[in-house]
Amino acid sequence: MKDIQSYIDKNKDRFVQELTELLKIPSISADSDYKKDMLKTAKAVKASLENAGCEKAEIYETPGHPVVYGEKIIDKDLPTVLVYGHYDVQPPDPLELWDNPPFEPVIKNTKIHPEGAIFARGACDDKGQMYMHVKALEYMTHSNELACNVKFMIEGEEEVGSEHLGWFIERNKEKLANDVILISDTGMISKDTPSITTGLRGLSYIEVEVTGPNRDLHSGLYGGAVGNPVNILAKMIASLTDENNHITIPGFYDKVEDLSSEERKKMAEAPYNEEDYKNKLKIKDVYGEAGYSTLERASIRPTLDVNGIWGGYIGEGAKTVLPSKAFAKISMRLVPGQDWKEITALFKKHFESIAPDAVTVEVKPHHGGYAYVTPIDNPGYQAASKAYEKTFRKTPIPQRSGGSIPIVSLFEKELGSKIILMGFGLDTDAIHSPNEHFGIWNYLKGIETIPYFYKYFAEMTKK
Amino acid sequence: MKDIQSYIDKNKDRFVQELTELLKIPSISADSDYKKDMLKTAKAVKASLENAGCEKAEIYETPGHPVVYGEKIIDKDLPTVLVYGHYDVQPPDPLELWDNPPFEPVIKNTKIHPEGAIFARGACDDKGQMYMHVKALEYMTHSNELACNVKFMIEGEEEVGSEHLGWFIERNKEKLANDVILISDTGMISKDTPSITTGLRGLSYIEVEVTGPNRDLHSGLYGGAVGNPVNILAKMIASLTDENNHITIPGFYDKVEDLSSEERKKMAEAPYNEEDYKNKLKIKDVYGEAGYSTLERASIRPTLDVNGIWGGYIGEGAKTVLPSKAFAKISMRLVPGQDWKEITALFKKHFESIAPDAVTVEVKPHHGGYAYVTPIDNPGYQAASKAYEKTFRKTPIPQRSGGSIPIVSLFEKELGSKIILMGFGLDTDAIHSPNEHFGIWNYLKGIETIPYFYKYFAEMTKK
Repeated sequence: MKDIQSYIDKNKDRFVQELTELLKIPSISADSDYKKDMLKTAKAVKASLENAGCEKAEIYETPGHPVVYGEKIIDKDLPTVLVYGHYDVQPPDPLELWDNPPFEPVIKNTKIHPEGAIFARGACDDKGQMYMHVKALEYMTHSNELACNVKFMIEGEEEVGSEHLGWFIERNKEKLANDVILISDTGMISKDTPSITTGLRGLSYIEVEVTGPNRDLHSGLYGGAVGNPVNILAKMIASLTDENNHITIPGFYDKVEDLSSEERKKMAEAPYNEEDYKNKLKIKDVYGEAGYSTLERASIRPTLDVNGIWGGYIGEGAKTVLPSKAFAKISMRLVPGQDWKEITALFKKHFESIAPDAVTVEVKPHHGGYAYVTPIDNPGYQAASKAYEKTFRKTPIPQRSGGSIPIVSLFEKELGSKIILMGFGLDTDAIHSPNEHFGIWNYLKGIETIPYFYKYFAEMTKK
Repeated sequence: MKDIQSYIDKNKDRFVQELTELLKIPSISADSDYKKDMLKTAKAVKASLENAGCEKAEIYETPGHPVVYGEKIIDKDLPTVLVYGHYDVQPPDPLELWDNPPFEPVIKNTKIHPEGAIFARGACDDKGQMYMHVKALEYMTHSNELACNVKFMIEGEEEVGSEHLGWFIERNKEKLANDVILISDTGMISKDTPSITTGLRGLSYIEVEVTGPNRDLHSGLYGGAVGNPVNILAKMIASLTDENNHITIPGFYDKVEDLSSEERKKMAEAPYNEEDYKNKLKIKDVYGEAGYSTLERASIRPTLDVNGIWGGYIGEGAKTVLPSKAFAKISMRLVPGQDWKEITALFKKHFESIAPDAVTVEVKPHHGGYAYVTPIDNPGYQAASKAYEKTFRKTPIPQRSGGSIPIVSLFEKELGSKIILMGFGLDTDAIHSPNEHFGIWNYLKGIETIPYFYKYFAEMTKK
């Protein structure tokens, strides 16, 4: 890898330019209005794989959005790395809170990113992090230093629960055969504190609809006598957590695997300052489950968050209406031991059971996924750790993340290999938020680090 | 009034046509986009007053939407009737629930209205009921039977709390001097059970904004550790009522004037069938304050209803966001004794006090009004009662309504006269709801009944 640094220096403007072009396409998987843009993005990804050195790159139709597959097989006897990423992005709203249009990328310097950061939806999650792997392959092809076979599986439904990726994997197990799965869709603690994500939370995402009267009513003529679905939905949501912010759904915690006090002590050693944490978010206080630290609440404990709520009149001014319906999108982050399908069923049963006769309730399970934990003693983790040591001159910290990549646990189950989560984003990159961005330093550092993973993984797994 | 019946028969198609034209103008006072249409409606009302016989009709600018004033003074010694109504309407959303566009009136027959009903926003509330008075004046002018002086005050801000009508009245007390104020902005029990509204509830309308973190967050990375403003708003709203649906705001009930068991017994005699009530609304059960009947809950007891709520992602599909903000529009219906300004202050103080440190709360009072009760022993009520007896051949039932006309109590205070609420609408007219309509039979019956009110009021108040 002698000349990787100079190769990156020579090409970094192009690397940024190419990513910028990819970010201009609004690949919003949740919104069917963007179906065309999804396909356009898939085609762009396919082309980039071919340019980077894949002998074969194809777009595979699924019942949902297509999957882009590419591969470069150099030697059947070498280990094979399967790179997973996604080209779809979260919806950008609320649009009014963006400083630039979410699909018109802008480069700006920030305190954390003096070298500049690319501001756009998907800049970090996951177009930017996915594209690091494409550019790393370009370097390894160019310098003829590719040490493993490589396969890419870039999907378009991660932000909506990877609904059809399982369908694709089932039908392509052989094609996808690999020795390790490499993913950059997580973050690291800070630019000078590299970390590798060793755990992810599971997810159960649900939409509820509460119906009261068959039409919107005048709140004067009926108010007080007819159940108001918004008031009742508020009561139902409020009752899902108790005064200690424990979740009250019967059986919810039954299968939670608690960490040993040993493990919790180790977690507590990670660098963290609660004052900084609060100041960054401009909150007077944190808020969560009694008996757990902020780091624990955000990683090893399950949660219940309302992601969206709406009902009645939400326009300008006043409307004295007693609405017919109220809605909420509710998601639960789950931890190892919890089965998301079982939790979804428990939620449904409980939520229906607490509805008063004044309303009817419909609970629509949306999507979900299992939590995941990687052991740190396998060659994949060790190779990643060594790669960070090489480029950051520091041993990365193993860290459980609160996020979810619902499909990860399925990879291990279906393809039998370990998943290594090498993330180069930062918590402050505002993924899923307005003004999402990705530091150019982080982007290039990822491109520099990834080739070492291939090198060390090949060495460690040599037969 | 010998030929009133034949006059109505001869002209009824024109009466309906004229109202239809008025209903085509989207006079939505809550939405500033419709400012032009508000003025257009005011001009149409002014013209209709002139055509009906007013010698003088003018549009008075206010800091908000204009007031239309018209008068016909025939004899200083005769009593003067001040007709109040409003030309503004409620916002029509949710639009998708309308069978016809809300401002493209359609006439359809219904079970309750075999003679046809006009479907449009404002058909009953209040363009249709206001226009009955214009056409009644037309008849009395035509037949030369106008028994009182008449003044019209038709405002454009009733649906947003009549914010500037007090301002207008203060400046025009002399012009508005009268012996009785006549309003048709309420309903009657049924087509064969006429009723006169003797009470209205007060109102306090409030908007709340709950802010958690300074930006939308990823619900995986922060969920469980950072206060979610939607979850917290739900808990706050839920806590505003207890398990008996009593309102928990300290001091809320202190000044409520309870009805005597005598009065409550009388109320219970009004024709009412709970099964019909539930079936009409397609609800399994009613829902309200313990210890009170449905009729009582909807008229003599104060309420707290969320009229609108929103926060987080409310689009198609899923977004795993922990939102920065959540909002709600909350209104309380008040009863005699409660001071809406005091209740608004109590709400603000309490709501702010129950917010956890994880969020900041902004409470924005919107508008309000006092409750009102008319005695039934005054000539205004007696004249109205006699007028109904004449045209319905039944004595109308005095009835307390759950609705509010916030300005009514101000009329009595500022102008010193009693307010008579002669309503011809029905609960089923869906005012404030999609598919609002007004029965043509009711419309014409109002036009027929109103002139008798003038006749009897003149007779009863003759010096």
